[in-house]
Formats: sequence, C-alpha cells, structure tokens
Amino acid sequence: MSRLAGVGVSPGVGFGTGYVLAHEIPVPAPGSRHGGDAGTERSRAEDALEQVAADLEERGARAGGEGQQVLNAQAMMARDPGLAEEVAELIAEGRSASRAVYEGFGRYREILVDAGGYLGARVADLDDVRDRVIAVLEGVALPGVPVGAAEPYVLVARDLAPADTALLSPGVVAAFVTEEGGPTSHTAIIARTLGVPAVVACPGAASIPTGTPVLVDGTSGLVRLSPSGEEVDIARKAAAARAVVLAAGTGPGATADGHAVPLLANIGGPGEVDAALEHGAEGVGLYRTEFLFLGRKEAPSPQEQEAAYLEVLRAFPGGQVVVRTLDAGADKPLAFLPPAGEEPNPALGERGSRLFRIHPELMTGQLTALARAASQASARVRVMAPMVATAEEAARFAAACREAGLPSAGVMIEIPSAALRASDLAAEVAFFSIGTNDLAQYAFAADRQVGALTTLQDAWQPALLDLVAMAAAGAARHGRPCGVCGEAAADPVLACVLVGLGVTSLSMAPPSLPAVRAVLARHTQQQCVLAGQAARRAVSPAQARAAAREHLPGLTDLAL
Amino acid sequence: MSRLAGVGVSPGVGFGTGYVLAHEIPVPAPGSRHGGDAGTERSRAEDALEQVAADLEERGARAGGEGQQVLNAQAMMARDPGLAEEVAELIAEGRSASRAVYEGFGRYREILVDAGGYLGARVADLDDVRDRVIAVLEGVALPGVPVGAAEPYVLVARDLAPADTALLSPGVVAAFVTEEGGPTSHTAIIARTLGVPAVVACPGAASIPTGTPVLVDGTSGLVRLSPSGEEVDIARKAAAARAVVLAAGTGPGATADGHAVPLLANIGGPGEVDAALEHGAEGVGLYRTEFLFLGRKEAPSPQEQEAAYLEVLRAFPGGQVVVRTLDAGADKPLAFLPPAGEEPNPALGERGSRLFRIHPELMTGQLTALARAASQASARVRVMAPMVATAEEAARFAAACREAGLPSAGVMIEIPSAALRASDLAAEVAFFSIGTNDLAQYAFAADRQVGALTTLQDAWQPALLDLVAMAAAGAARHGRPCGVCGEAAADPVLACVLVGLGVTSLSMAPPSLPAVRAVLARHTQQQCVLAGQAARRAVSPAQARAAAREHLPGLTDLAL
Repeated sequence: MSRLAGVGVSPGVGFGTGYVLAHEIPVPAPGSRHGGDAGTERSRAEDALEQVAADLEERGARAGGEGQQVLNAQAMMARDPGLAEEVAELIAEGRSASRAVYEGFGRYREILVDAGGYLGARVADLDDVRDRVIAVLEGVALPGVPVGAAEPYVLVARDLAPADTALLSPGVVAAFVTEEGGPTSHTAIIARTLGVPAVVACPGAASIPTGTPVLVDGTSGLVRLSPSGEEVDIARKAAAARAVVLAAGTGPGATADGHAVPLLANIGGPGEVDAALEHGAEGVGLYRTEFLFLGRKEAPSPQEQEAAYLEVLRAFPGGQVVVRTLDAGADKPLAFLPPAGEEPNPALGERGSRLFRIHPELMTGQLTALARAASQASARVRVMAPMVATAEEAARFAAACREAGLPSAGVMIEIPSAALRASDLAAEVAFFSIGTNDLAQYAFAADRQVGALTTLQDAWQPALLDLVAMAAAGAARHGRPCGVCGEAAADPVLACVLVGLGVTSLSMAPPSLPAVRAVLARHTQQQCVLAGQAARRAVSPAQARAAAREHLPGLTDLAL
Repeated sequence: MSRLAGVGVSPGVGFGTGYVLAHEIPVPAPGSRHGGDAGTERSRAEDALEQVAADLEERGARAGGEGQQVLNAQAMMARDPGLAEEVAELIAEGRSASRAVYEGFGRYREILVDAGGYLGARVADLDDVRDRVIAVLEGVALPGVPVGAAEPYVLVARDLAPADTALLSPGVVAAFVTEEGGPTSHTAIIARTLGVPAVVACPGAASIPTGTPVLVDGTSGLVRLSPSGEEVDIARKAAAARAVVLAAGTGPGATADGHAVPLLANIGGPGEVDAALEHGAEGVGLYRTEFLFLGRKEAPSPQEQEAAYLEVLRAFPGGQVVVRTLDAGADKPLAFLPPAGEEPNPALGERGSRLFRIHPELMTGQLTALARAASQASARVRVMAPMVATAEEAARFAAACREAGLPSAGVMIEIPSAALRASDLAAEVAFFSIGTNDLAQYAFAADRQVGALTTLQDAWQPALLDLVAMAAAGAARHGRPCGVCGEAAADPVLACVLVGLGVTSLSMAPPSLPAVRAVLARHTQQQCVLAGQAARRAVSPAQARAAAREHLPGLTDLAL
C-alpha cells in the first residue's frame, strides 16, 4: 500500500476506484485555415461560443451556490463581445474557427496571466471555456466526469475546473484528489459546497493510474492507494458511525455542558441561503457582498443591493446576519472603477476597506442600501469591514456605520496588527470576526496562492492560534463577541480548540456545520479550553493537533 | 507660514533655500530620423552610452558605499550589449540616435515595469540613464544638482535618482524633500549614508517654488515653508546643540547608568567598512551579502566570497560581525538561477532563506566560504537567515551552520509568526536580529513600496512595538541576545524605546550612530523601560511617540 499526502480541504473519508480526469482537447494546428466562406465559418464559431455559454449556465443553474457563480462567470467569458470580434477578425484573415478561437482566447489568457493574483487564478477557468468551444467545433467529447458510473469513484486530476465538478453528485463521487490547488481553490470551495471529502496540493496525485482503489481522508489530507480491506473497513465504519452521529445532531450549536456557540453560514449571496438553512445554520456569519460587484460594468444600483441584502435577511427572522462590506480592489479589480496603478504585491496593497479611502461613495452606498434592507426585516444585522489594521481605521468605519443608521459595526481580524491590538480595536467596534486564511497569510508572510508554502498556511500553526487567542481576549475585555469565519472553523477538531481559545461563534460553508455541531456537543467547554492550551504549548502544527486531541475524547469513534 | 508633512527618513534638522530639481530632457520626436550614415549615427550612440557609463562609474567611485553600488548598476545598464544591439537595429532602420536610445530603453522599461517589485523600483534608475544618454547626444546639460552653490540649499524633487544625489556634499545640501519615495527608497538610503536630513512621501513637495526658504525636520517629517526667523533660530540652535553633543559622544554604546547596548553598522560590503569605523561602530550588525550575488551572470566563486567576507571581518578584530545569508529570490531574482514561476505577491513568496529549499547549494556554498573566512580573523562571526517563520525552519538553518563549522547561528525576526513564537525559535538558535521594515510590512499587511500605506509602516505603531517586545522576551527566556537592524534603530528616540523593550544591540546606517549613542547616554535603562511601557500603552504612533518622550527628558535640548 502506498500513501500520498496533501492538504485536506473538505472533511470526511471517501473510498472508491480512482478515475483520472484528463483534458485532451487537441491544440488546433497553427496553420489551420478554413479555406471556404469566412461568413459561414464565423457563424460556426459564434454558435459554438453560445452553445458553450448556454451549457455552462445550465450546469450552473443545476449546481447552485458558489458553483453557479463560477459557471456564470465562465459563460460571460464565452459571450464576451471583444472576444467574438477578435475571433471574427482571425477568421476573416483565413484562420479556421478552432484556430481562431484558440488564438483569440490566447490574447485574453496573456492579460490574465500578466494581471496575476485573483485574475491570474482565473486562467484555468478561461482555458476550460476555450477547450469546450474547440471540442464543440471539432465534434469531440467535452472534457468531463464519467457519466452513469455504478460504483462510487474518487475523482483524481491535476486540477478541477468548475464545470468538471458542478454536476457531480455526492452519491457517486466518493472524494476528490488534485495535484494542484489550495484551500481556497475552486476544487476546495466546490467540494465543501457539495459536502464531498477532498485533498488538494497532493504531489503525485495526477500519476495515480485510473482503476486504483483510493482511500481519501479529507480531514488529515492522507490519500492511501490500494488500501487493505481492513483499512477500508475501519474507514467505512468510521464514516457510518459519523453519519449516524451527524444525523442525530440538530439545534443550535453548544458544548456538552450547554455553553452556546452559534453555528453560522458563510454565503456569497441569496442563492446559498437554502443550503445554509438545510444544514441548520443559526444565521449568517459571513455574507460576502463582492459577488454583487465583481465582473460588472456598472456598480449595482441601491435598489439591487437592497433587494439582495433583504432576501438574505428575510431568510433568518430574528437571527444574526453578518454582512461584510465589499472586499475588492488590487487583485479583485472592479470593472466600473478607473484602474488603479499596478501594485507590486496586491495582497499587501490597497484592497478591502482601504479601497474606501479612494472611493468612499462605494461604502456609503452599500451601508445606505443595507440600512434600508435592515429596516424591513427582523434579522439582527451586523456589518463588518475587511482589511482593518488599526484602532483608528476601526473607529472610522464604526462612525460611518452609525451615520448610515447601522448600530452594530464590527471588523474582520485578518491582519496580525489587528489581533495584537485587539483590545484597542474592541473599544471602537461591537464585534470581531477572525478571517483565519488571510491572517495566516500575513502572519507567516506566505502567499495563499503559493502551493510550496502550504505548511505555513496550516491553521494549526501555534502562532496563528496565539493570534486567535489574543483577538478573543481583546474582545472579551470589552464584552464583545468574537467569531471565526475562516476555513479553520470548518475543521471540527480545530473548532473545539477555537472555542477553547475564547471564540464565541463559528461560521463556515454549510455542509461543514453538522460535523462541527456534533463534535462540539460531545465536549465540555473546559475540555475545549484544555485542548486550546495544549495546542498553544506545541511548537508545530502536527504537535498542536495531537496535543489538542488528547483532551477531546469524543473524537475517537468519529475517525476525525 | 505653511507646512507640509511627509515621512522623516534621515534624522536631523536642515534649513536653506529650496531648489527644485527638474529633469527636463526633451523626448526625441517619434518621427526623428538621422537621414545620414547609419554607421556614424551608431558610433555617436555607442560613444554616448559609454560616456554616460564612465561618468556614472566615476561618480560612484567618488560617492562610495551603497551609492556606488547603485551607480555601478546604472553603468551596467548603459553598457548592456542587448541594449546596444537594439539601438543599433533602430538606427539601421533610419531612426536618429536619440530616438533609437529612447525606444531601445523603452523596451527594457516595459520589462522592468511588468516585473514589478524590486525590479519595478529600478525604473527611475533606468530612466535616469536614458535621459543622460539623450542629453549627451542632444548636447544639453545633464540633469543634476546646482553646482557651486554658496549657501546651503534644500534639494526638492518628485524623486531623486541615485546619480542626482551621489555627489552632494553635506556641507552644501541642508536637506532633501521628495514628493515620492519611502523609507527604503534610494533617496532615503543615500540621505542616511551622507548624514543629510531627509523627508520623503511628502505630498505637495514638488510644487514648492524654487527660492522658497525651507526648514526640514528629518525626524518628525515636518517641512515648514518660509518659516519665521524665530523658528529657524530655534532649529539652528538645536542643530548646533546637537552638533556639540554628538561631537562629544564616543566609545561603546551604553545608557546613562552603564547598561551596555552595542552600536553596530548595517553594511552592504567591504566598501562601507570605513564609514562604519569613522562613526564608531563597534562591529557589524547586518552585513547584507546579496550585493555579491545580484546582477551577476554566474554565482560568485567560493574564493571571491571568502575574500569579501574576510575583508569585513578583518576590519573589526575581536568585534562582532553579523552576516546575513543571501536575501534574494522573488522580487530580487538572481540572474544565474533558472527563472522561478511568476509569483502573484513576491513579498509573500519564495524569497530569503525559502530560496534555499530549492537551491541548497547556494546556502552551503555561502556558509563554507564564511567558515573559511572566519578561521582567518579574530572577529566574532555570527550568521543569520532572513525570512524565517517557524522554529522548525530556525532549527534547520542552525543545523546547516553547525555542519559548516559556524557555531553562532541566528535568525532575522521579520515575520510576525517568528516574533509571536520567539521563545520556540530562541530554543533553536543563538541570537535574533529584528528587521523592523519587513516586520511592519507583514504585521500591517502594508507593502513597503506603496506610498499611500506609509502610516501603517510607521515603526512607532504600538502593534510593532508589541512584536519587538515579544521577540526580546522570547530571546531573554533562553538567555539569547536580540538586536534590531531595521530602520527603527536609527531613530534616537525610538532606539531608547527599543532598549526599554529588551533589545540588546542596535544596528544602523553608520551616520545615524552618533545621535543614537548620544541620546542613549543621556537616559537610564529604567527611563528607557518606562518609555517603552508608555509607548505600548498608546493606541496610535503619534500617541506612542509623545508618551515615550515624557520619560526621556534628555531629548529637550537636542530638538529630536
């Protein structure tokens, strides 16, 4: 039996036959010409682009949630008028439709690659659209997952495109394993949305032969090839035991001794409210509003914003809904703003609420629309700013919220200085929400997008736990709640540790809620505190994880 | 009287008539053709390039130190064979020599701009070389500072090119003020090397009319236009008083009550040893070895490295010399290594000692050469690694040093996690050196290169002081020394605070040593401790500065 190790990004255990997904759309030959009527060839290209756009939208509508947003963004790429014009010109010069599509996409590709950051990470999406259009033109099969598989299979790939994964059903796909990607890649996001175990950044994964039995632990990141029957048995039993436990757990989040820990959902828009409710979210801990703004030629109108906010608020009558103001800029540029100067390090630049210094109208517009929505719903609306580093910045945001009629203003704790001076910040705002992903990125000076630095982004790093403890203690000193809305909250073991460090609520992708609820319910607050203390005494992530588990006896039969 | 405020980057007070430096080399017209013999025109271009290269080298030789390195790098640009070929081709196509130079440099410019980061910041240097070559070809005056000025003047500019500043003498130039630039810009580095007060990132500076009397406080960053006679008087008296005090202070660094604080020099190579000795450095606190490696087509040989290290070691018999291993990669690529993939955020990427994971031969080669040099000198050699985030990385570096025969291995504390877990790291290594510039960049997620975020890079930010205190406490727990080699050590007031927070040595650009020595000698360790505590109780940099000063009575007559 051999083992591979990657990064577990969607919890749970999956076993099945490995199916290696290959994208084998041939590159149209450079000299390829249509040799006929340019008008006819152009129509073929236009029809293929539209067919792919429509197909992506349909897949999106069936997938829902964040998957839908990604697929809709891909459909927009296929329908880009500038691209169609580029392709038409290349065809007018005599190139075949396939080659024209290949070259036309190539120019867009360069722009994305040069842009780097968020846009650079969209290259895989663009390539997937290109391959689909060429497949239609060449009459070959679209890249995709096996259809009609009888047995559950483990989907293995270099990286998964959103269109590859959107239609997978958890019943047929046992797990994902990818060679590339990270905790914030599309593969990871979609795996969590579907509730399928997943391991990414797993060296050697793409070389697993199709047909190999694969056992995937989406919590530890371990991938076993051709495991023994006994191992599979243990994993299956554990999974069955977990299913029973998870099915049994309902109601609000709390420790075994009744210490309440509200369990909330991270959502990107009204389309994800259903999933949140289905998994028993008590409210929304992170409503990412940038999906309303990104990829738009004009800013959304106040009416459109108000409607989107209201739809989410109405889904949680009397519940808590935390709305994060626009987290764009730098690597997520807004099409309707004048382009900012190029930044050498977008992640350290004028992003998040720093953008409001230059464009205050964006913030006031958003706060006004939110205040209007809040006045029409019974949800407890909270609003928070991303990328806040100092007490002064926190005070400025809170003042703007008060002026807009929103009394509950908070900040994301995602910059180390904000955690270090948590008490100063807590004096200015009503609550904190810790974003563990960015906090780790800055605390370890390790880019979230660089696979080689993944161990530095491990949320079990003791230095990150220190910052969480500081943030929670600073909040407590002023009687403020302090949640976590980063990926760390979705790891059930780490969730206990976070509670032990003083975190007061946990927000995550909805499918992660049942496991966190179940594990929390099996441990007392005191066990969580001891687990947190033990983890902070460790000097490495592995030691921290092991030390915490010794204080959490309720994990053993869950195979977590 | 009007005031401007910028960032003080070189301490002291300067007063004089403002002289606004303008680069007014005309852009050669796009259609400009030579209309004659291409061979002759090509010789003109080659001669001009060589004349500028030789001029830059000569200026460099007279300037010495880091200024010389920058000017030599510019001379290399002028002598680049690829550039000469490009220019020759453009002339062969009929373009005039000036226009060919303009366009030829333009292509290099684009590459630098696209590269961003460290290379992007070299665009101003490249433009300066281009303008000088065109000035020679057009027979116009070279851009430069006034020659033969009788009265001291304040040099004002949008930004200063190294060639502008390298030949300035502190006797004639009272101060620098620039609209752009940051604490790590060339203007700042050269100002400190020359010991001239300087304020950078000062909005409105470039609009100061030439001839305006300007009073510059390089410590507070305040620039007063047309100050009253009384204000100038106070500033002049303060400067005179400081001169007396500074002239009086000699010997090793210590507080008034005799607590030793070794005062060391930051240097880039053997060429800067003289300045260090002249200002009474007790040793070297930061020897940046990357200047041996950058811009080279092949790695320096073991013999060349050994010689460079030995030359520095021999200058400090019995003294301390801290050598930092190569801090390159990402935004400071090494020409002799295969290019790494493009990184979305180079500052958060595989830079510093992270590069050694991919190229271990670089580290072992450097450590071996250093061990050889150490065996031939009596200096106490210490070696430290940049960009260390965890105890595990620190242990790995210490093991490599032991294997090379270098028993005293340390780490830079420039990543927040390293400060947070200082005690874990101190268990693995013999000493710490805090790099406040990068530490601030990561702690506040604020790029050092982005002027709009300058307030977040203020070393008086309480969160940064917290990290310094944590690092020093962690070191003390294991009986390890903990120095500071970032820009913060050169601010005499902040230097006292750092000592109060537990820092055991201070390393800085040599001209900053006398002021720090003098201010330290006027205060007891207990006053420093109280100043440090007061600064950490503050909630903003301004409050921290004011609170610290209340405990440092010896500052009053120094106008610091």
